[in-house]
Amino acid sequence: MTTGARVDRSSVAELGTTMRALVKEGPAPGAAIRELPIPEPGPGEVLVRVEATSVCGTDVHIERWDPWAQENFGPPPMTFGHEMAGIVVGHGPGAGRIALGERVAAETHIVDGTCYQCRTGRAHVCQNLRILGVHRPGSFAEFVAIPESNAWVVEGMSAEIAALQEPMGNAVHAAFVEEIAGQTVAVLGCGPIGVMAVAVVKQAGAARVFATDLNPERLEMARRMGADVTLDARDDVVARIRAETDGNGIDVVLEMSGAEPALHQGFAAVTNGGRISLLGTHTRPATIDVSKEIIFKGVRVYGITGRLLYQTWYRTTALLDEGLDLTPIITHRLPLTRFAEAFDLVESGHAGKVVLLPQEE
Amino acid sequence: MTTGARVDRSSVAELGTTMRALVKEGPAPGAAIRELPIPEPGPGEVLVRVEATSVCGTDVHIERWDPWAQENFGPPPMTFGHEMAGIVVGHGPGAGRIALGERVAAETHIVDGTCYQCRTGRAHVCQNLRILGVHRPGSFAEFVAIPESNAWVVEGMSAEIAALQEPMGNAVHAAFVEEIAGQTVAVLGCGPIGVMAVAVVKQAGAARVFATDLNPERLEMARRMGADVTLDARDDVVARIRAETDGNGIDVVLEMSGAEPALHQGFAAVTNGGRISLLGTHTRPATIDVSKEIIFKGVRVYGITGRLLYQTWYRTTALLDEGLDLTPIITHRLPLTRFAEAFDLVESGHAGKVVLLPQEE
Amino acid sequence: MTTGARVDRSSVAELGTTMRALVKEGPAPGAAIRELPIPEPGPGEVLVRVEATSVCGTDVHIERWDPWAQENFGPPPMTFGHEMAGIVVGHGPGAGRIALGERVAAETHIVDGTCYQCRTGRAHVCQNLRILGVHRPGSFAEFVAIPESNAWVVEGMSAEIAALQEPMGNAVHAAFVEEIAGQTVAVLGCGPIGVMAVAVVKQAGAARVFATDLNPERLEMARRMGADVTLDARDDVVARIRAETDGNGIDVVLEMSGAEPALHQGFAAVTNGGRISLLGTHTRPATIDVSKEIIFKGVRVYGITGRLLYQTWYRTTALLDEGLDLTPIITHRLPLTRFAEAFDLVESGHAGKVVLLPQEE
Amino acid sequence: MTTGARVDRSSVAELGTTMRALVKEGPAPGAAIRELPIPEPGPGEVLVRVEATSVCGTDVHIERWDPWAQENFGPPPMTFGHEMAGIVVGHGPGAGRIALGERVAAETHIVDGTCYQCRTGRAHVCQNLRILGVHRPGSFAEFVAIPESNAWVVEGMSAEIAALQEPMGNAVHAAFVEEIAGQTVAVLGCGPIGVMAVAVVKQAGAARVFATDLNPERLEMARRMGADVTLDARDDVVARIRAETDGNGIDVVLEMSGAEPALHQGFAAVTNGGRISLLGTHTRPATIDVSKEIIFKGVRVYGITGRLLYQTWYRTTALLDEGLDLTPIITHRLPLTRFAEAFDLVESGHAGKVVLLPQEE
Repeated sequence: MTTGARVDRSSVAELGTTMRALVKEGPAPGAAIRELPIPEPGPGEVLVRVEATSVCGTDVHIERWDPWAQENFGPPPMTFGHEMAGIVVGHGPGAGRIALGERVAAETHIVDGTCYQCRTGRAHVCQNLRILGVHRPGSFAEFVAIPESNAWVVEGMSAEIAALQEPMGNAVHAAFVEEIAGQTVAVLGCGPIGVMAVAVVKQAGAARVFATDLNPERLEMARRMGADVTLDARDDVVARIRAETDGNGIDVVLEMSGAEPALHQGFAAVTNGGRISLLGTHTRPATIDVSKEIIFKGVRVYGITGRLLYQTWYRTTALLDEGLDLTPIITHRLPLTRFAEAFDLVESGHAGKVVLLPQEE
Repeated sequence: MTTGARVDRSSVAELGTTMRALVKEGPAPGAAIRELPIPEPGPGEVLVRVEATSVCGTDVHIERWDPWAQENFGPPPMTFGHEMAGIVVGHGPGAGRIALGERVAAETHIVDGTCYQCRTGRAHVCQNLRILGVHRPGSFAEFVAIPESNAWVVEGMSAEIAALQEPMGNAVHAAFVEEIAGQTVAVLGCGPIGVMAVAVVKQAGAARVFATDLNPERLEMARRMGADVTLDARDDVVARIRAETDGNGIDVVLEMSGAEPALHQGFAAVTNGGRISLLGTHTRPATIDVSKEIIFKGVRVYGITGRLLYQTWYRTTALLDEGLDLTPIITHRLPLTRFAEAFDLVESGHAGKVVLLPQEE
Repeated sequence: MTTGARVDRSSVAELGTTMRALVKEGPAPGAAIRELPIPEPGPGEVLVRVEATSVCGTDVHIERWDPWAQENFGPPPMTFGHEMAGIVVGHGPGAGRIALGERVAAETHIVDGTCYQCRTGRAHVCQNLRILGVHRPGSFAEFVAIPESNAWVVEGMSAEIAALQEPMGNAVHAAFVEEIAGQTVAVLGCGPIGVMAVAVVKQAGAARVFATDLNPERLEMARRMGADVTLDARDDVVARIRAETDGNGIDVVLEMSGAEPALHQGFAAVTNGGRISLLGTHTRPATIDVSKEIIFKGVRVYGITGRLLYQTWYRTTALLDEGLDLTPIITHRLPLTRFAEAFDLVESGHAGKVVLLPQEE
Repeated sequence: MTTGARVDRSSVAELGTTMRALVKEGPAPGAAIRELPIPEPGPGEVLVRVEATSVCGTDVHIERWDPWAQENFGPPPMTFGHEMAGIVVGHGPGAGRIALGERVAAETHIVDGTCYQCRTGRAHVCQNLRILGVHRPGSFAEFVAIPESNAWVVEGMSAEIAALQEPMGNAVHAAFVEEIAGQTVAVLGCGPIGVMAVAVVKQAGAARVFATDLNPERLEMARRMGADVTLDARDDVVARIRAETDGNGIDVVLEMSGAEPALHQGFAAVTNGGRISLLGTHTRPATIDVSKEIIFKGVRVYGITGRLLYQTWYRTTALLDEGLDLTPIITHRLPLTRFAEAFDLVESGHAGKVVLLPQEE
């Protein structure tokens, strides 16, 4: 800690000079718990003691060091992790709007505030976007420094639910590009963001909600979160949806799987003049019959990344405050040191959301 | 009945040549039950045996023969009433899309289909709008003829709820001009459409919902339909709303009262850059500080009339199908012959929705 | 002519019982001028004496009998052609809103008016869409019958320009999905609709307009219609656009070519959070890197087909009335009998718009 | 000048320690040229040598010390003026994105960046809005300090036109709430912002543009800027507009006068389901027949203040770059010392825009 940063040592008795962090050490698979200096919050930043930090598929990519990670992460050595909530324990120079002791979640996309996108209401696609735990040290640690403007104050919400607002925000963003109430919705892919999308659209008054996946456990979770109809993605999803929508097809498709077959099911199932939000990351190019799948149907396709800054956060928090319950989605809570188990669980598909607890042994 | 109209006499054994109807007989207060010929459905029309027809404030205006009625109704003698549902029992020439025996509700705004508004997606403000029971014979009768395109087929819904879709559609239209999910909402005025609006926005995932009225019975109904906070409109509504919205004010105001003080409360309570839907009919001009109440706050004000044809109907039906329950709003069910009692109930403010049953004695 | 249809024989002295028409006679390449009975306008239809009917790429597909035509046209024998304007000379039963002697253009998409799409403001993607000259007899003839609701009355406009409103409407629809004024625009593909799009966006206050094509004649036409920068599509279009837009990329892409490379250029050139309208018909599936080209950029992709009924027509006419001049686009005017020459010209790419004149020898 | 602020004294030879400024000295009518210290740019601010600063009606209110000024300005003594452009000659601590020597205009609304409005894409109605020259020292001076984020870099544009972007931005904001191309527009009130609105909508492809005012000189200016029809506001404006729009009424009303009669003309002239932007400041409440003027017509009313940050600026600059010429609107250019003459001209209504030149004697 150096000049300019004020840290509340009284309220954080355990705050020493070093901390435990999960570090990607080099350009190769693997990760390790290391003892690092507690970061110093820079200008406009806050220091957060991490209470809960959940595992995203991205974290597994980083640990496994797949091509995406090789292209995007780092450079190593660096702490990763980004979905998080914790307590503000320090202010960098110029920070202070958020009081010490407040619980915050993190908007993980750090934007420059000055580019064309940031100046025209679409900072979520900032030209100089930097992501927490990907381009700068992340939250798989006891402490993390984040810009104060990225810290979202949380009231009356547990740390683990607060942390989940970041991926839930993806679902909210994808769903609320246009109206949802009274619309039929198909959620394709029931990973954590998919099942959160199911809960979100049900809370928002969607008409009939269909959910598809290959994994029966995930479909079961979708049912639990409110899906009216769950379908094995290998079945004739399009026919089922048409049959249950008077032959009209579905109003809103939320593509959460990143699987090309789901993409085609979505285009085939959507009603003429309907809309599709694409959020699931595709690792390979898809072969799309543009005329038939998009043009002649008069479809609107929305690429969805991140969260609208900060409209999405207001809506996400509001939905949680009004009773949307994410608890069933959290299937595992583990100390940070059991990260390897956590990553295996996520990769296996037999888990919902796995939350790491850096303050626990 | 004459050539061209096909009427299903087999399925409607009781169908004779005359029917009971509630008629405004002349340009003066009052109305009377009369025996009239069963109407013949014209080109493109269907004949409907009315099962349920609820009382709208407009009907009371017509019966009382107030200035609005004098200017708009008729000419008398004519049957009035418009909120309705019933069974299709006959087809005029060219009709037939809807099978005999189907239950339908009525979109009560009959449009020309050819004016600038009808040709540009806003038929609800057709330049040649004619309203059922105001400009042509209405539904306070055993039978009524309506254009087939105005007949909304109903499945799995009781006739009385089906009839309520028309006023509920007003609430849906007012609420869904823009997004509702995650937004704070104030419903000003808890008559039947106001309490339906409360139910609609709650179903659509609104954040905190405030409802105001002068009448404690109506506030009780609003609570029952889901309002989070109910406020006596004589209290400091604006302060209460600001206090409960972190000082930001309300995102969405739905003005359902037609009372000028509510209008000012709405403008004062709405957050900067928020929106106000105006639906309640004002019988007198209002004195508005345009600069302070609208311009400097950057507010959007939406005049709401009727229902979007037929987007609103799809959404209304979908919300009902998904579980929105209007039953508590129906406080009285009476045979048509007890119309006088019905109108008094509506005027007294001690009733929710009153449904008349033309087929009952 | 039979009962019910009223035809103004006095004003159309030359009206006999037969007419000249260009007929696709069977499921094979070719077409022939034949003498056919003048069509009788059906219920709600008008009979139009065709003054000008321009050649669309679709017509060439039909004449050549390519796979698209084999799948969609007919069945033969049937007259084809659809872009048209002419004089109303007869009314079918129930028609009459448009007076005899009025000049009309044709909206060529004939919709059912009752499906989900037609009832929710998107009739242009009607579930039972039928296209003039594709699914019913077309306008390559001296006379054609069309629904009166599809006849767009024209005032103070020549027949040939009136006919061009149909393809121009495609450009208007594609361009005006969202705002244009002050936006940078790239039009990819400078066939007739592309160059009309250039003219449309310039008239609507677009900022810098880029146009691409492989054909220098078409680029020259784009320049003439107002393009600020024309680029050979084989050059580094993306780099040029980035260089001339402060590195931000383009706000609005209008894909008019149907060529996959243009699609990729569009996705690469569009600014983050920008939008792409797809109108050019792709004959083959395209390989799209969905994550990189759509999702991570937060792009909106609009499939565009037909014209909004009838918002697009009002805007199209208004732009023409305010001075947008399509005349330079019409490079050839030929009697209908020289259809073979017309089709060759269109296919060669050495023509702008070719107009056929059925009333001339 | 003190520590932290870097000022480019080399490039600004004349830069001493004091400057000439027009100061409202106390809570009473009048203003005086005074010698003040050159302001020091604070954190995140730039120092600008003012080249041109035009007179807004607000400035006259301040000089005259009318009730609005008494309530909003100051406190005095303080320099006023806000429409401006000039050269960046110094950086406060943390500033530097904009190079010394660049010409900038000023967005005059200074926002907190952290309130609900600022965090949800509507910073122009920030809860803690502070206006240059109203709440902090303004631009009627040789130098002014403004936040760097409020400095809009200008290229290839004269200082006087650059300064006019601020009021022109009001017109752009009012006009582009929704689409303009192909729409009929009525601009009510032809003060400087009104005539700029005429030019803006013409550039953006509006169909027929009507302009009204009481002052024939202003109507002449509106004609010069492109109005198709100019009308004395005392005439039957509504009848004229209906007559020239096929009886449909006008699509878009831009109320720029702040006069109640214009408001009523706007409501009467707008087509059913059309829209009205309110920008002209009303000094008195207006008596509005809410039911008839807004509700039954299904009208959308937009309160317009300021400019969207910074979408409006991008569009404004783009329209100027594409050829919109504001030069005719500037009727007078005077040295700052002749401010009294300038204010009289503005108040008289016999001037277009009056530009003050602080660097001239």
